[in-house]
Amino acid sequence: MTRIYNFAPGPAALPQEVLTQAAAEMLDWHGSGLSVMEMSHRGREFMSILETAQRDLRELLAVPGDYRILFMQGGAIAQNAIVPMNLVGRKPQPATVDFINTGQWSIKSIAEARKYATVNVAASSEASKFSSIPPRETWRLTPDAAYVHVCTNETIGGVEYHFVPDVGDVPLVADMSSHILSRVIDVSKYDVIYGGAQKNIGPAGLTMVIVREDLLGHALSICPSAFDWKVVAENESMYNTPPTYSIYIAGLVFQWLKRQGGVAAIEQRNIAKASLLYDYLDSTDFYGNPVAKDCRSRMNVPFSLHDASLNDTFLAGAKEHGLLQLKGHKSVGGMRASIYNAMPIEGVRALVDYLKEFEKQNG
Amino acid sequence: MTRIYNFAPGPAALPQEVLTQAAAEMLDWHGSGLSVMEMSHRGREFMSILETAQRDLRELLAVPGDYRILFMQGGAIAQNAIVPMNLVGRKPQPATVDFINTGQWSIKSIAEARKYATVNVAASSEASKFSSIPPRETWRLTPDAAYVHVCTNETIGGVEYHFVPDVGDVPLVADMSSHILSRVIDVSKYDVIYGGAQKNIGPAGLTMVIVREDLLGHALSICPSAFDWKVVAENESMYNTPPTYSIYIAGLVFQWLKRQGGVAAIEQRNIAKASLLYDYLDSTDFYGNPVAKDCRSRMNVPFSLHDASLNDTFLAGAKEHGLLQLKGHKSVGGMRASIYNAMPIEGVRALVDYLKEFEKQNG
Repeated sequence: MTRIYNFAPGPAALPQEVLTQAAAEMLDWHGSGLSVMEMSHRGREFMSILETAQRDLRELLAVPGDYRILFMQGGAIAQNAIVPMNLVGRKPQPATVDFINTGQWSIKSIAEARKYATVNVAASSEASKFSSIPPRETWRLTPDAAYVHVCTNETIGGVEYHFVPDVGDVPLVADMSSHILSRVIDVSKYDVIYGGAQKNIGPAGLTMVIVREDLLGHALSICPSAFDWKVVAENESMYNTPPTYSIYIAGLVFQWLKRQGGVAAIEQRNIAKASLLYDYLDSTDFYGNPVAKDCRSRMNVPFSLHDASLNDTFLAGAKEHGLLQLKGHKSVGGMRASIYNAMPIEGVRALVDYLKEFEKQNG
Repeated sequence: MTRIYNFAPGPAALPQEVLTQAAAEMLDWHGSGLSVMEMSHRGREFMSILETAQRDLRELLAVPGDYRILFMQGGAIAQNAIVPMNLVGRKPQPATVDFINTGQWSIKSIAEARKYATVNVAASSEASKFSSIPPRETWRLTPDAAYVHVCTNETIGGVEYHFVPDVGDVPLVADMSSHILSRVIDVSKYDVIYGGAQKNIGPAGLTMVIVREDLLGHALSICPSAFDWKVVAENESMYNTPPTYSIYIAGLVFQWLKRQGGVAAIEQRNIAKASLLYDYLDSTDFYGNPVAKDCRSRMNVPFSLHDASLNDTFLAGAKEHGLLQLKGHKSVGGMRASIYNAMPIEGVRALVDYLKEFEKQNG
C-alpha cells in the first residue's frame, strides 16, 4: 500500500490513525456486531458516539455553555442561505446584512444572502485581487444590521484573519470551514460560527454550526424545518436523520486532536508547517505568493512559478514524488498547498525539498 | 467478531460484502494511496465513483433518459420543503398541492408543504389508523394542482402501494425512501421520486432525487441554491461538496445489487422474505398485524403481541438470539421488523423461529 501526501483543499487528508481505526471497526463497532453505518441514529450506541463528538468539540474549542453545537448537512454553501433565513427575522424586513468581501467564498455568501436580505458590502479587498483583509477601521458597517459576515479563512485566495473584528453589538457570523480547529479561537467573540467538515475535520456531508442560544427562534417562515437552527437544537441534531458515519469519523478526528495535545498544540505545529513553506517561497524569486504577510493563511498556501510555462512539468514531477493535488483553483491559477491539521510536517518538508529540487533543475 | 441480524428501520443493515470491501479499501482506494474520504470531489478518482454510482442506479431502476438523477443532502425531511420550493413555482401563487395521507411520513410532508403552498389532503386513511391505502377512486384531486404527493411505503405503519396511481397530467411525486430498489418500478409513471439512502441503500446523509428534466427551472426565489434541483442538475450534483463517502458506499450497494441479479431478482427474494413472516403472523392469534393484506409493506412489518405485557420479555429474548432493533416506533408501539434488501432470508427465518419459540413458551 502506497500512502502519499495529499495537499487537496477539501475533501482533504485525514489522520492515518483515524482511517486505520475506522477500517478496523467497520464491521463491528465495539463488539456491537454492527457497523456504525448500520446503527439506528436513536439507538444507545450511536447516541453515545454523537454525544462524545459534541462534548469533544466543545472541549477542543472551549465553547461556552450558552452556545449550542449543531450537526447539520449541506455544507457552508447551504449555510449561505440558512444563516440569513435564521437571522434576518430578528429585524424588520427587509433587513440589512453586512459582508466583508475577502475572496471567492465571501462572494458566494454575498450572492446567496441577497435572496433574503439587503446586502451591504461593508469592505472589500477585491481591488487588491483579494491579497489582503480590509483593515477594521475601513469597514462601513450598518448600525442596525442583522449581522456582520466574515469568512475567516479564504480557501482559494489563502487569506486568513489573524484578528477578531470588533463589530459592537451586531452579531458576528464567521464561515470558518477551512481553518476551524487549526488555531485557538475565543468563541465568545463570535455569535455564529459555521463550517463544512470536509476541509480541516474530515468527511464531506457534515456541517457544524456553533450558535449563541439567544439567536435561536427567529427563522423566517419559509425556512425549511430541517434547517431551522432552533428545531435542530431542540432535537439534538436529530430532527432529520443525521449523517451518522460522518459524525463518527469527525468524532475520531476530535479524539485524535486531543491526543495531539488539543488545539493550542496543533496551532504551534501549524505555525511551524506554514513558516517552513512561506519562508522558502519568500527566499527565492523562482516562486511567488501574492498575499500580504499579515494575513497569510496557515492552512491554504497559494503560490506561483515565476515561469508559468513550467506549471505542467512541476505538477507531473510533484506527482512522481507522491505530492498530490497541488494545482491551484481554476479562478486564480498557479499552485496551492493545503496543509490542514492532518498534514504532518514531513509532508511540508517533502514539498519544500521538491520545490528546491525543481528550482535547481529549472531555475 | 459477532454479526447479528439488524431489523432497524434506518439507518439499517448493509450487505456484509459491502462493509468488507469498504474496510479493505479504507486507506488505499484502488492503489490511489488515498481513502475515498480524502479525495477531492472534483478529482478523477471520485468523479469516476460518482459517475459509476449514477450509471448503476440508472440501470437498476431503468431510469429513462429524460430524467435526471441528483445526489443531495438533508434526507426526505429536507425534501419535504425542497419539493414544494422546486415545484409550486410552475403555477400561479399560492399554488395548491394534493397529498394522500397514509401515515406518519405523509403527515410530516403535509405539515412542511403548508409553508409553501395551499395543501389539499385529497384522501386519507387516518380513520382506519393508517392500516390501508385509500382506493384511487376516492381521491378528491385538485384539477390544477402543482403536484400530487404520495409516500409509497410508510416505514412506521408498514403500508405500501402495490399500484401506481393514475393522476392524469398533474405531476406525481413519490417519497420512496424506505422501499426504493426493493421492487421493479416504472419510473416513467412518476415525475419526481425521492428518498433518503439510509433505509434501503445504506449510509445516512445522502438523498436521491430522480426528476423529469422538464420540471427543472421553476424554483421559488427563496429556494437555497444548493437545493434548487436545476442548479444541482447543471452542476452534476457538485454545486456544494457532495457527501462523497456516502455516495461511494451507495455505489458499492448498487454493485452488490447488480451481483444479486438486479431489482427484479431482489424483488422475488423480498416477496419470499415478507411472505415467510406474514404467513406466520397470520397463522396464530398470539401475534397480530393491523395492515390490510393488499397494502402490506414488504420492507417494514409491524406486529404486536396479543398480550402487550410480554413486550419487554420478547425484546430481551430477541436480543439474546441476536435479533436486534425489533421495537416498534413509539407512535404505534408493539414491534416492527424492517427487512430491507440487505436482510438475508436466514435473518427472517431466525426471526420466525424465535416467534414460534416465544409463543410456545408464553402462549
